[in-house]
Amino acid sequence: MAKTLLLKNAYVWGADGTITKSDIAISGSEIAWVGSEKQDWQADHVIDCTDKLAIPGFVNTHTHAAMTLFRSYADDMALMDWLQNKIWPAERKLTAEDVYWGSMLAIVEMIKTGTTTFADMYFFMPEVAQAAADSGIRAVLSRGMAGVAPTAEQALHESEVLFREWHNAAEGRITVMLGPHAPYTCPPAYLRRVVELAGRLKAEIHIHLSETAGEVETCLKEHGKTPIALMNELGVLDCGVLAAHCVHLTEEDIAIMARKKVRVAHNPGSNMKLASGIAPVHELLSAGICVGLGTDGAASNNNLDMLEEMRLAALLAKVRNNDPLAVPAATALDMATRRGAEALGLGGSIGVLAAGYKADITLLSLQGPHWHPRHDLVSLLVYAAQSGDVDTVMVNGRILLEKGNLTTIDEERVKYEAARRSMRLTR
Amino acid sequence: MAKTLLLKNAYVWGADGTITKSDIAISGSEIAWVGSEKQDWQADHVIDCTDKLAIPGFVNTHTHAAMTLFRSYADDMALMDWLQNKIWPAERKLTAEDVYWGSMLAIVEMIKTGTTTFADMYFFMPEVAQAAADSGIRAVLSRGMAGVAPTAEQALHESEVLFREWHNAAEGRITVMLGPHAPYTCPPAYLRRVVELAGRLKAEIHIHLSETAGEVETCLKEHGKTPIALMNELGVLDCGVLAAHCVHLTEEDIAIMARKKVRVAHNPGSNMKLASGIAPVHELLSAGICVGLGTDGAASNNNLDMLEEMRLAALLAKVRNNDPLAVPAATALDMATRRGAEALGLGGSIGVLAAGYKADITLLSLQGPHWHPRHDLVSLLVYAAQSGDVDTVMVNGRILLEKGNLTTIDEERVKYEAARRSMRLTR
Repeated sequence: MAKTLLLKNAYVWGADGTITKSDIAISGSEIAWVGSEKQDWQADHVIDCTDKLAIPGFVNTHTHAAMTLFRSYADDMALMDWLQNKIWPAERKLTAEDVYWGSMLAIVEMIKTGTTTFADMYFFMPEVAQAAADSGIRAVLSRGMAGVAPTAEQALHESEVLFREWHNAAEGRITVMLGPHAPYTCPPAYLRRVVELAGRLKAEIHIHLSETAGEVETCLKEHGKTPIALMNELGVLDCGVLAAHCVHLTEEDIAIMARKKVRVAHNPGSNMKLASGIAPVHELLSAGICVGLGTDGAASNNNLDMLEEMRLAALLAKVRNNDPLAVPAATALDMATRRGAEALGLGGSIGVLAAGYKADITLLSLQGPHWHPRHDLVSLLVYAAQSGDVDTVMVNGRILLEKGNLTTIDEERVKYEAARRSMRLTR
Repeated sequence: MAKTLLLKNAYVWGADGTITKSDIAISGSEIAWVGSEKQDWQADHVIDCTDKLAIPGFVNTHTHAAMTLFRSYADDMALMDWLQNKIWPAERKLTAEDVYWGSMLAIVEMIKTGTTTFADMYFFMPEVAQAAADSGIRAVLSRGMAGVAPTAEQALHESEVLFREWHNAAEGRITVMLGPHAPYTCPPAYLRRVVELAGRLKAEIHIHLSETAGEVETCLKEHGKTPIALMNELGVLDCGVLAAHCVHLTEEDIAIMARKKVRVAHNPGSNMKLASGIAPVHELLSAGICVGLGTDGAASNNNLDMLEEMRLAALLAKVRNNDPLAVPAATALDMATRRGAEALGLGGSIGVLAAGYKADITLLSLQGPHWHPRHDLVSLLVYAAQSGDVDTVMVNGRILLEKGNLTTIDEERVKYEAARRSMRLTR
């Protein structure tokens, strides 16, 4: 029989968007019911959730986890200076083990700030998969592929192997997408091969699109089309696409994206820090496009705090559109959870606290002064909460964080390994 | 003899902008020296600061502390709808006692997030002064004055009384400025009386200026001048001015402000949430204008977290100016501390960790995963830290927060009082 767990007396953000005092019953990896206590339901373990808020764990739809290794190494620089003189030279020294420990550091931080699923694009991906498997977190993994790089062929091969070995692995916690890096690193001929591979594997695609004005300009010059239009022409958008950034879009781009059901990973913190621009989130949502939130890598953010991204998404849309009603709190929370799950192809499985969904749950303590007075818990969560409020986190019904302490990871060892490797890489 | 205290072995952000492992010696309310241990210096009390970062306490240059009472009461609304239908009706019910407890809730939150000084503009200001006096925090207080309100005369009188009774009170922790609310609530004739009073008391002025595009437009229509030019004409800028917001400025405005040494309270979170716009911070700094940071009230932010404002100031300037080099981390930290102190007329007294300055110090724990690896502690503080990292806070050499616990305030009572009063006010 499956192990049962009862979260008692929490404020629960329910499937209908309201918050009510409820219990959450968990059987094995799934939510059995949400509501008031049922006398005939016996729990192996009960957690008192008085004065705690229960939400679906945050879904980080775009990051490069192992880049925690480069956190605070190089900031406040122009993009190409930063890449050419700092990040790329350091990345060339990366080993598979480095990527494992860098990913582990990211996972430590993500779990402690309430994230239960992350979508990653990097290399040495079996190591990232192993870190996800070891830690208990949920992950959607893509081997980044650059058609212009010497590793172009190898990357296609590794992507296929990753898909075959890890898709639906680790109790179903890991899924795999193909990760052509971007139109400016993947020429049309290469993208056609990616599309062919995606069709053969029935894999979806995770790609950077229209992140900077310069990228769009170059694409127009070289191909006479925007990156979105080019991807559409090449059949990329027919594979099921998670498009990261989407900052610089035309109306026609948005119409194509809506038609092709492209899902967007919006990364407000990274877009601000790298001065990429402000994505038209309100316009995307109005067109019925699914928009999730991501942190991007810790080298360009510089943390993996989804609470911060959720707040930024709400604030940035308002100031972009001169409209204090743009992206209200409830929408931002939905983007950080349910819509993020949909963006990763996990809709109906995670991102909602309701019977039948996987038990991926984050509990926040409401003790802090910033949670008072309490007129509206969703507003408080989106506009006032701190990531330090995260108290308990579970994935697939398994507790990964208990009263602020990790249960599956030796945090001190991770910090030590990541720090010493980072120093070697950046020497 | 003054009591002595030694902060041992901290990472100290020094007056020269570098971070070095040092001790900080405190004698009474002042920093005696910063450096390596002196054998002949005896401390009554030693605090081990291993793996802690010491910075000057944050200076919040603009807030309305008691508005914590309206936190999460009304969000995602247009400004006038919010004011007329929510905030003003609730404010009309406020009592002096409500303002005391609302201010106390703000002070609890500010201390716990590392703020040691705040500049406040509201009413029932003797209660705010009492809360500052009771709690041990430093405050710069202004009775908000609206010339168009029935309280116009009373406000002038109360401002003078506040100045006489509280300026330099509470061991010098409290200073008083005059607080004409804004050009659109204070007609020229009224502002001339404020200027006259300021001259008589030798008091400086705290005022909202050029917060919204609409305000500037109306001012141009009614007076044929921008708010800055109008204030200059009326002599307001000759009093020593702390100008909150300054979002919509002309080049000529910036030239006037530089000439008149106007100091700016930049409130990025509030400006984003209310969709007021993005202040030209890079341009202000380039013109040599002193810019500090503020949270604005918790009804429009919705927290009082200066770490968040510091990060937003750095990120928002970059995306506004399409320049990832705009407002680098060190500048943002300087704005949140030393420049904030200057903005409040407290330059040379607080905002720097050096001998002779008041011992207003915030210690952050570096244990969290987001503080690893550690290439650059200033970058980590500005781009990655959480307010939950704040461990110890002192003002005037007195410890107000010790390992996350308040030493001078009964936090549970404050939360209880603020919550029950808030419910009454918003019924």
